[in-house]
Amino acid sequence: MDKKITIYDLAEALNVSPATVSRALNNHPSISFNTKKRIVSYAQSSGYRINKFAANLSKQKSNTIGVIVPKLNSPFMSDALSGIEKVANEHNYNLIISQSLESEQKEKLNAKTLYDSGVDALMVSLAYETTNYEHFEIFREQKIPLLFFDRVDYFPNCPTILIDNRQAGFDATEHLIQQGCKNILHVSGYLKRNAYNNRFNGFKDALYKHKLKFTPYNLYETDLDPKKVEFVMEHIKNSKEKFDGIFFANDAMAVACIQALLKEGVQIPKDIKIIGFNNNPVSEIIQPNLSTINYPGYELGVLAGQSIISHLKGNINIQSAESILLKHELIVRTSSISNK
Amino acid sequence: MDKKITIYDLAEALNVSPATVSRALNNHPSISFNTKKRIVSYAQSSGYRINKFAANLSKQKSNTIGVIVPKLNSPFMSDALSGIEKVANEHNYNLIISQSLESEQKEKLNAKTLYDSGVDALMVSLAYETTNYEHFEIFREQKIPLLFFDRVDYFPNCPTILIDNRQAGFDATEHLIQQGCKNILHVSGYLKRNAYNNRFNGFKDALYKHKLKFTPYNLYETDLDPKKVEFVMEHIKNSKEKFDGIFFANDAMAVACIQALLKEGVQIPKDIKIIGFNNNPVSEIIQPNLSTINYPGYELGVLAGQSIISHLKGNINIQSAESILLKHELIVRTSSISNK
Repeated sequence: MDKKITIYDLAEALNVSPATVSRALNNHPSISFNTKKRIVSYAQSSGYRINKFAANLSKQKSNTIGVIVPKLNSPFMSDALSGIEKVANEHNYNLIISQSLESEQKEKLNAKTLYDSGVDALMVSLAYETTNYEHFEIFREQKIPLLFFDRVDYFPNCPTILIDNRQAGFDATEHLIQQGCKNILHVSGYLKRNAYNNRFNGFKDALYKHKLKFTPYNLYETDLDPKKVEFVMEHIKNSKEKFDGIFFANDAMAVACIQALLKEGVQIPKDIKIIGFNNNPVSEIIQPNLSTINYPGYELGVLAGQSIISHLKGNINIQSAESILLKHELIVRTSSISNK
Repeated sequence: MDKKITIYDLAEALNVSPATVSRALNNHPSISFNTKKRIVSYAQSSGYRINKFAANLSKQKSNTIGVIVPKLNSPFMSDALSGIEKVANEHNYNLIISQSLESEQKEKLNAKTLYDSGVDALMVSLAYETTNYEHFEIFREQKIPLLFFDRVDYFPNCPTILIDNRQAGFDATEHLIQQGCKNILHVSGYLKRNAYNNRFNGFKDALYKHKLKFTPYNLYETDLDPKKVEFVMEHIKNSKEKFDGIFFANDAMAVACIQALLKEGVQIPKDIKIIGFNNNPVSEIIQPNLSTINYPGYELGVLAGQSIISHLKGNINIQSAESILLKHELIVRTSSISNK
């Protein structure tokens, strides 16, 4: 078999007209249930790629949920996907996942690919770059449920699931202040994205509450790739007033920076107190163990999965749902405590 | 719009018969190029989900590559996917990824979902459980290129890309022997899968070459989930003859075990020398730094991506390709060296 099977091959094999095959595969009312069944069943067994929403005759479902994430290389994202996948499995849905690699253009391509694949629902954590959301319009128009998690933005009638990043940023910073820090650096992700912008706002809230000054030196914006730790180190070394605390917007960069600081002979937590974000397992492997904010990725995934499935089953309409905020938690380990 | 768009809606809007729409979307020779173009273009703009291989009129391509992996939660797998994605992007292909979660049943479902999505090619790293490969037959029959990487098995006419796991297992074990170890434990993954079976065979080869005895105590088979490190610890403690070296089939379990051993007051490398596998970034964070085998995940992904793309572009026929073996490398750090 060198050629893909077409409806004309099916029509010939089943001795019906191509129009009948087409109607059957499109669940047209003019074709009897038994004929539809015979045609769909033969089409499936022959390897014909049935248009997803024709395959399930009565329900027009593909039982597939699409997910777009920025990158797959973080424990937080693996945890979130595990949570989504657990709920999906329980309800006989399958996940297909694609990475935007932080690019708006690729996110658009992912959205189109998943739409064309016939997904029943779409879950998205936005790329750094994305500012235009036209690529999600088609899902809304076609009433395909759409949900944003972690990296979200306002999109009419779409629920969002995340933590209160502003409060979490405040908690992390206030903890450093309570340990005696007076000149704290915040190493943030791109401030265009809600998660990082809100952590930064929480950082400023805490400085303001405790009457500590904020200058542009107290913020260093990065893509949080630990391979670029040298630029953070440069910023730390070039600062006129020495930093006595650093709040990192993720643990991976915090760990890379602890290693670099230790190499330079800086003592942690004595000279500089450090706190990260996410509660990545590596925070309990690095010496000293890293204080951090626990962002419950698995629970987020479970909740996101449950929302989508409930909507697909008609139990709730998520398009009218509010934002769901999960609880974060300050986790204090040795990297940030004063009497060590 | 409450209902999905059908070819009947398109036919009405374009004032042609449903059969003409269907034929145009299926690239039937009886329909003129201009009519096809008009119908496909309208169908796309209306949000109709075009059958993937009809969308690209002349080439019957979806420009999508499907990937099935056991789990997404390892740096090795993220690296491999980054490599595949890099090559795919350069050639305007998009990846969709699904996880088998080590289940044969889910792997079958993934294969079906990706087939129905119209992928142009499929890349697979097998689940622990998979013993039957019928779910891949349809790809071979339809001449959709299929490639296995890392966790592979013999499947007629399918190329495989991986390292020489037997030689790598031998190198890791011989290194421990050269550091003076005489009673070495191998903590392996499920031996049903080639990667772990071959690492184990390399382990035995090294013991045999150096005339060290092998008893069932020298092997502990696990799923390599670091959460289950307590069972490994129990095996270590219950052994009559104390182990002086451990070769782990992955770094994640090695790191968890180092932490547990240190807690028990065991000195590493003085009492027990340890080597892992994969060169996971955490091996440079744990104290003492973990010796390991470098498995170049990113390079594997790039090579796998190039093979598939070359095949899709008609430059080579991968179905006649042999197995590609990448170079691994022994990386010696402090966890395994004798004079420390």
